[in-house]
Amino acid sequence: MTIEAPSRRRAIEDAASGLFHERGYAATSVREIARVLDIQGASLYAHVSSKEDVLWSIVDRAASAFEAAADRGKAAAEGRPPAERLSALVRGHVEVIAADPRLASVFLSEWRHLSAGRRAGILERRDAYEAPFRDVIADGMATGDFTPTDPALAATFILNALNGLAAWYRADGRLTAGRIADHYSDLAVRTLTEDHR
Amino acid sequence: MTIEAPSRRRAIEDAASGLFHERGYAATSVREIARVLDIQGASLYAHVSSKEDVLWSIVDRAASAFEAAADRGKAAAEGRPPAERLSALVRGHVEVIAADPRLASVFLSEWRHLSAGRRAGILERRDAYEAPFRDVIADGMATGDFTPTDPALAATFILNALNGLAAWYRADGRLTAGRIADHYSDLAVRTLTEDHR
Repeated sequence: MTIEAPSRRRAIEDAASGLFHERGYAATSVREIARVLDIQGASLYAHVSSKEDVLWSIVDRAASAFEAAADRGKAAAEGRPPAERLSALVRGHVEVIAADPRLASVFLSEWRHLSAGRRAGILERRDAYEAPFRDVIADGMATGDFTPTDPALAATFILNALNGLAAWYRADGRLTAGRIADHYSDLAVRTLTEDHR
Repeated sequence: MTIEAPSRRRAIEDAASGLFHERGYAATSVREIARVLDIQGASLYAHVSSKEDVLWSIVDRAASAFEAAADRGKAAAEGRPPAERLSALVRGHVEVIAADPRLASVFLSEWRHLSAGRRAGILERRDAYEAPFRDVIADGMATGDFTPTDPALAATFILNALNGLAAWYRADGRLTAGRIADHYSDLAVRTLTEDHR
């Protein structure tokens, strides 16, 4: 039985993802990826042109997943108050990480090993992805919903907090992804609101 | 002129820290560390017994710096309201990262490559380090200063947000470490306080 090319390609990416996550991109060889799949290193090259090419596919897939989640979040909360808009973005981010923490982890820590051109492209996409987080914070400050702060720094604080999930989330952990998303969206919104008691 | 042993040992750790940060522990060889110092790989072994030994020294030094900062923060804010106690812990954490972001980054991401015994030791120390963060959140909930939340999850959210600094902090960046500490302690305290307008 032969596996059709797209599935084989995806199996290669999944095996690579596990190894890149576990020991890092630089310390993983194509031969090791092939060994996980129980094939010859040479046959791997029928499906991928280089190790960096596999990393690129993984990083690009993760970036697209985050982008799609942000688009859904923006659409779902359009015209709603800033707190709800931020909450929708936070939930989308948590869901993408919880759906595949290894993929998210490789995206977040191994993208630096991409070639210069691809790295620059990912930096641009990350900046574009983070823009709606900064914008909703700035909007909330303008409407008086959020307390005055540095929108870029507050967005970084929140995104760093969320990204930490990629390192510790377990599907069989104490809290479900849904409960974490509930808590994290509360915590994120509260970073921007003052206690007026 | 010969450099005395303790300085030489520190120079080795600093060179290793840079390489581990840049390309990861697993992808760095002892030969490469020696090359940065312009010495022979063999002479390096006069000062260190293995690459893992160097990683251990770096990780242990970083862990000690975080522990000392937490002790200072606890002492300085003893008997003060929960918000001030949390703020002192956050400031200490930010200061340790800003003082040496590369050291912090190696500590946070490369400790997994330590031998099993040392790894278990570091996990225990991290848990002990994080305990006062969880405790002050639980205390603040008990006194009514903080809104009810999951103390362990809220502590993780805040610590992940702070740890992100290790990846992006630059001494010549837009904000000084002091300004970041001000902002981050405000953001952290606000995650735990409800908007009562």
